[in-house]
Amino acid sequence: MRKRDEFSEWYDEVIQNAEICDKRYPIKGMNVWTPYGWKIMTRMDGFIRAELDRTDHGEVHFPVLVPEGEFAKEAQHIKGFEEGVYWITHAGLNPLDVRLLLRPTSETAMYPMFNLWIRSHADLPLKTYQIVEVYRYETKQTRTFIRVREIHFFESHTCHATYEEAEDQIKENLEIMDSLARTFCVPYLKMKRPDWDKFAGADYTVAVDSLMPTGRAIQNGGIHQYKDNFSRAYDIKYEDESGEHKYVHQTTFGLSERLLGGVIAIHGDDRGVILPPKIAPIQAIIVPIPEKGSQEEILAGARDLNMQLLGCGVRTDVDDRDIRPGAKFYEWERKGVPLRIEFGSNEMKDGTVTLVQRHSMEKETVSQGDLTVTVKKLLESIQNELWERASDELAKGIRTIEDLKDAKAGINRVGWCGEESCGHEIEDVTDMSVLGTLYDGEEFEGDCVVCGKPAKTAAYAARTY
Amino acid sequence: MRKRDEFSEWYDEVIQNAEICDKRYPIKGMNVWTPYGWKIMTRMDGFIRAELDRTDHGEVHFPVLVPEGEFAKEAQHIKGFEEGVYWITHAGLNPLDVRLLLRPTSETAMYPMFNLWIRSHADLPLKTYQIVEVYRYETKQTRTFIRVREIHFFESHTCHATYEEAEDQIKENLEIMDSLARTFCVPYLKMKRPDWDKFAGADYTVAVDSLMPTGRAIQNGGIHQYKDNFSRAYDIKYEDESGEHKYVHQTTFGLSERLLGGVIAIHGDDRGVILPPKIAPIQAIIVPIPEKGSQEEILAGARDLNMQLLGCGVRTDVDDRDIRPGAKFYEWERKGVPLRIEFGSNEMKDGTVTLVQRHSMEKETVSQGDLTVTVKKLLESIQNELWERASDELAKGIRTIEDLKDAKAGINRVGWCGEESCGHEIEDVTDMSVLGTLYDGEEFEGDCVVCGKPAKTAAYAARTY
Repeated sequence: MRKRDEFSEWYDEVIQNAEICDKRYPIKGMNVWTPYGWKIMTRMDGFIRAELDRTDHGEVHFPVLVPEGEFAKEAQHIKGFEEGVYWITHAGLNPLDVRLLLRPTSETAMYPMFNLWIRSHADLPLKTYQIVEVYRYETKQTRTFIRVREIHFFESHTCHATYEEAEDQIKENLEIMDSLARTFCVPYLKMKRPDWDKFAGADYTVAVDSLMPTGRAIQNGGIHQYKDNFSRAYDIKYEDESGEHKYVHQTTFGLSERLLGGVIAIHGDDRGVILPPKIAPIQAIIVPIPEKGSQEEILAGARDLNMQLLGCGVRTDVDDRDIRPGAKFYEWERKGVPLRIEFGSNEMKDGTVTLVQRHSMEKETVSQGDLTVTVKKLLESIQNELWERASDELAKGIRTIEDLKDAKAGINRVGWCGEESCGHEIEDVTDMSVLGTLYDGEEFEGDCVVCGKPAKTAAYAARTY
Repeated sequence: MRKRDEFSEWYDEVIQNAEICDKRYPIKGMNVWTPYGWKIMTRMDGFIRAELDRTDHGEVHFPVLVPEGEFAKEAQHIKGFEEGVYWITHAGLNPLDVRLLLRPTSETAMYPMFNLWIRSHADLPLKTYQIVEVYRYETKQTRTFIRVREIHFFESHTCHATYEEAEDQIKENLEIMDSLARTFCVPYLKMKRPDWDKFAGADYTVAVDSLMPTGRAIQNGGIHQYKDNFSRAYDIKYEDESGEHKYVHQTTFGLSERLLGGVIAIHGDDRGVILPPKIAPIQAIIVPIPEKGSQEEILAGARDLNMQLLGCGVRTDVDDRDIRPGAKFYEWERKGVPLRIEFGSNEMKDGTVTLVQRHSMEKETVSQGDLTVTVKKLLESIQNELWERASDELAKGIRTIEDLKDAKAGINRVGWCGEESCGHEIEDVTDMSVLGTLYDGEEFEGDCVVCGKPAKTAAYAARTY
C-alpha cells in the first residue's frame, strides 16, 4: 500500500498492521486501544504529565458526567457543543430527574468546583490538569485518532488574578507545547484563530496546527484565553488584598490523541509505522539469527546484549520466538521500532552486532564494546532527524500566494487586511478554512488578497481535518 | 472527632481534611479526585500495573460505552446489572437508534472483541487488563470510595484453553492479591462466596473481603471463574491442535477504589489519615524550624537533607511555606505522611535531625550522618507494623460461635453443612450476609449451626458494606 497514492487506506492499514488499535468495536468511532498502542499513548501522556508537574500544575480527575444545568451556564459554550453531546436520560429502569451528559471537554464539570475552591488571592493561581476521555457525537466520517467519538484527551485549566497573569500562562503553555512537539516529532504552527472560529466561550484561541502529508492541516490541540467569560457564568471570584471581590481570569490548554495520528501519518512509510525513539515502547529490538549447532550460544549472547542495554536505560527486548528472523524483521518494521539489532554467528565470531535504523533502513556493523554508546547516540540522532525532516515538510508546505485562484494543497499564506468579510471571502473562494494569523505576529509586505487595501498581516488558509 | 465513637463522621472528616477528594460535585456519589488523593490512587494503580505486567498481562483500554445488544447476551449477567446502569438514549438533539450504556464492568465490552481476537490455541492464553472508571447507579446511601456511582476500577480478563488452566490463573490472581494486600496494608480473607451470592455470570467467586473498624466486612474486589459461561454467549472459540473448535474458559479479577477507603478506615486515627510508606506520595516531610538570625542557614540545611534523601530514592519534600511549624505539623499529620523530619537550630548545632513517626507519634533524634539509612529502615518498619497491626485486627475480628444468637459485630465463624437452606437461615437469624467459606478449605469440628448435622466446613457471616 503506497502512502503517496492512497493515503487513507495506507493510514488505516499501517495502524492495523502495527496493532496500535482495533476499530472493529461495535460502536463506530469508539476504538479499542490494544496493548502496543496503549503503551505508546501512555508514554506520550507521561511526557505531558512531566511538563505539567514541572510547571506546578496539580493533576485532578473529574467525573465524566455533567448535569444539564451546569452545562447550560455559559451561553457560547453550550451553543458550540450541544449538537454533539451524549445524553444520559435513564438509570436502571427509571428516567432521571436531571439529564446528565458525557463531558465533551471539562469546563462545565470543573468550574462549579473552582467556584468552591477559590476564595482569596492566596488560592491563585490555581493550576490543574487531567488526562481522561472526552466524548463527541461526530456526524462526519470517523477516522482512527483523528475523528473519533471517544477521545483520549489532556486538558489543563488555570485561574489567575488578572488578565496579564493569564497571558503569562498562555506563554507557559506554548513553551510546554514546544517541548512536547519536539518529543513527539510533530512540528506545528501557533495559529491565532480568527474570531469566527475560536473555541466556544474563549476570548481568543491559539490553535496547535500541524500539516498532514495529504496537504491538509490538522488541529491537534488548542490554547485558550477565556478572560472572565466563564468566571462570570460560574461566579468564580476571589477577594484581593484590599478586600475587593473580583472575577478570575482563566486559560485552558487541550491536546488529543490526534497527536498520535500525526506521528503515524507524518513519519510512517510504506513499510509501516515509524516511532520517534522517545515515545517508542521498544527502542531497539534484538533479533538473534540462529544457526544450526550454535542456537543456544547465540540466544544467550542476545540476552547478554539485552541486559547490557536495559542496564543503561535503553528500552530493549529480545525476540526469541520460534519463527523465521525475516518474519520478525517485518513485524518490528511495521510496529516502527527505531532500531533493530541483529545477532548471528558472524557477529558472535567477530564480537560485533549489526544495527538497522528503521527510518532510513541504514545498516551498519559495530563492535560489541561500543554497543551502548552507539545505540544511545543513534537513538538521539534518529529523534533529531525525524524532527528536522518533519519541520522541513511543514516549512515546504507553506506557500505565499498573491491570487486566491493559486491556492493549493498545503498551507496558503496571503495578505490580509484583518476584516472578517475578507476572511470569509478567502474561505469561500478557496473552499478552505482560514487557520488564522501567527500568534507571534508578522508583517506582510503587500495588500489584502481580497480587498486590495494594505495588508495588516498574513492569513493562513488550508483544507482541514 | 473520635474514630471509635463516630466512625462515619470521622471517616468523612479525615478524607476532607487530608484533601484526598471533594464530594461536593453536583452529582451525588460522583466525587472529584483532588491532586493529593489522585497521587495516592495512581501510586496504588502503579503497583497493580507492575504485578500485571510482571505476569504477562497486556494493558488495554476499551470504550466506556456498550451497545444494548452486546450487554444483553449473557442472561445472568444482565439480570445482575440491569437495575444499576446508566443509559444513553440521545446524542446531540436526536434519539439514538441503539441505546448505549456506561460500563458497570467490561465483560460485555470486551468479549465481542475477544471473539475476533481468538482463532487458535496459539492465541491462548489471552491475558489483558485495564484501569478505568465503571458506573453503577447506586440507590443506597453513597459513601466516599466505598459506595460511589463512578468507581475507579482495575479489571483483568483472561481466556484459557481449559478449565484447569483457568484454575491456575485464579491461583496467580490470588498470589498477585497477596502481594498487593501487603503493599497497601489491607489484609483480607479469600472467601469463596456461596452460590447464591456469586458474581453475575460466574461459575464461582472468590471475594477479597476485609474487615472495617465498624465490625462490618467490605468486599474490595473479586476473582471469578467463568468457565465457558460467557464464551458460549459471545461465541469465543479456538481451534485446538487437532482442528476441533472449543469454547475458551475465562477468569476475571477486579479491584476498586474501595481499597483506598480500606487504607483510610483501617489505619487512620483521630489525628487523620495514616498512609503506608509504599503508597504515600510524600514519605517524609522536612519541616525547618526557623529561629531569628539563622532562618536562611536552617532552610539551606533542610534543602540539603532533602536532596540527600531524594538522591537515595526517598520521596521527600521541604515545607518552606511562611506559616508556623505547628500548623505544618498538623497538616502533614492529617495527610498521613509517614515521617516528619524536624530541623531547627538545635539540630543544626548538634549535627542531628528529629524524626517523628506518624503512626506511633514516636520521636527520636538521630545524627545527620545516619539519616538516609535510618529513614529507609523506619519506612520499612512502619510498612511492616501497619501490616501486622491490621492483620492482628482482622484475626481478632473473627470469632467462632456455636449459637447464632451470639453473632456480633465482626466476622462470625459457624459450622455449616453446606446446604443453601441452612445458609439462608444463618443470614435470616443474624441479619448478616454469609461471606462464604475459605477458598483454601478448612475442616470444622462440630455440627451445622442450623440443622445440627455434621458440619462440612465453616461459614463466615458478617454485616457488610
